[in-house]
Amino acid sequence: MTLLLNSIRQFVPLSTKDEAIVNQLFEPYQLESGSFFLQAGDVCQYVGFIAQGLLRYYVLDDGNEHTYDFSPEQTFTCNYESFLTQTPSTRYIQALEPTILLRIRYDNLQKLYETLEHGQQFGRLVAEQLFVVMLQKLTSFYRETADERYDNFLRLFPNLTERVPQYVVASYVGIKPQSLSRIRAQRAGKYY
Amino acid sequence: MTLLLNSIRQFVPLSTKDEAIVNQLFEPYQLESGSFFLQAGDVCQYVGFIAQGLLRYYVLDDGNEHTYDFSPEQTFTCNYESFLTQTPSTRYIQALEPTILLRIRYDNLQKLYETLEHGQQFGRLVAEQLFVVMLQKLTSFYRETADERYDNFLRLFPNLTERVPQYVVASYVGIKPQSLSRIRAQRAGKYY
Repeated sequence: MTLLLNSIRQFVPLSTKDEAIVNQLFEPYQLESGSFFLQAGDVCQYVGFIAQGLLRYYVLDDGNEHTYDFSPEQTFTCNYESFLTQTPSTRYIQALEPTILLRIRYDNLQKLYETLEHGQQFGRLVAEQLFVVMLQKLTSFYRETADERYDNFLRLFPNLTERVPQYVVASYVGIKPQSLSRIRAQRAGKYY
Repeated sequence: MTLLLNSIRQFVPLSTKDEAIVNQLFEPYQLESGSFFLQAGDVCQYVGFIAQGLLRYYVLDDGNEHTYDFSPEQTFTCNYESFLTQTPSTRYIQALEPTILLRIRYDNLQKLYETLEHGQQFGRLVAEQLFVVMLQKLTSFYRETADERYDNFLRLFPNLTERVPQYVVASYVGIKPQSLSRIRAQRAGKYY
């Protein structure tokens, strides 16, 4: 809970009264490795704060998984589009490790915005940040080459290379696992 | 100014005091047909509300214009990414007709958020709406075929077919003007 309060404080100040509201509106939740925070077809009802563990985001395209993002500890998780519009998700959010979250339901988040002293400002700043981040990620997803996307993975998630299975890294880069091995071998060659 | 106040009221209520603040922080601005609200390389300093006229949004890719959006009367205009991050724009916003706007500068919008009774909530709701709209438009921009994008143009901008030059419609669909004429001819054939 302290980690969550600190994360909110990166956007707005919180009073003792605000802290009590956050405590009351978020609830603990656990995911086993491989299980889902959200599946395609379901409406995203929760925003989660990851206390421990790791999630990945993917879409299914003709039966192929395209991983497009990861959320490690001390970040928030949500399919924000499905959540805001309360319409079924086209994406999956899956735990890659046993994951411990604090989550808040849609109606309780509205209550949070209304009752925290700077609740609406917090919501605005989060929405603005997500707008910018999502735009960059989506543009990267559609426009960049496999080499550029592998560079992105190493740059954006430097601590995840040991934690993410190779076939998931390959699905993030948009290539087959064998092709990823080839890119890695080529790069290793450069430095020896 | 009444149109602007009504547009804000679609998100939050405004008191008489709020109205005076809006009046004070927005300023009138005019664009001739063909001139720019924003050019690539410049930082987007303003959000504009279009009282009369029409704007289009495009990127240059290897010298080719790709139009990806339009803003007619009674809508807001901004390169929200450049505006939020206060970094140079990669996009152009150009008037297709003589256009009359009310615009607000970055620092004055922050003041608006802080001083309107529901200012922060207004900012949150706008950011959330823009997030959803942008996600849908960007996905359409990258994933859909020329036929689908022409359908989108007709569906999203039913009143603009007479107002937008053909080469701009073609650059929205992502094809040459001659190919657009062919699509139109084929469709006309279907109905006779």
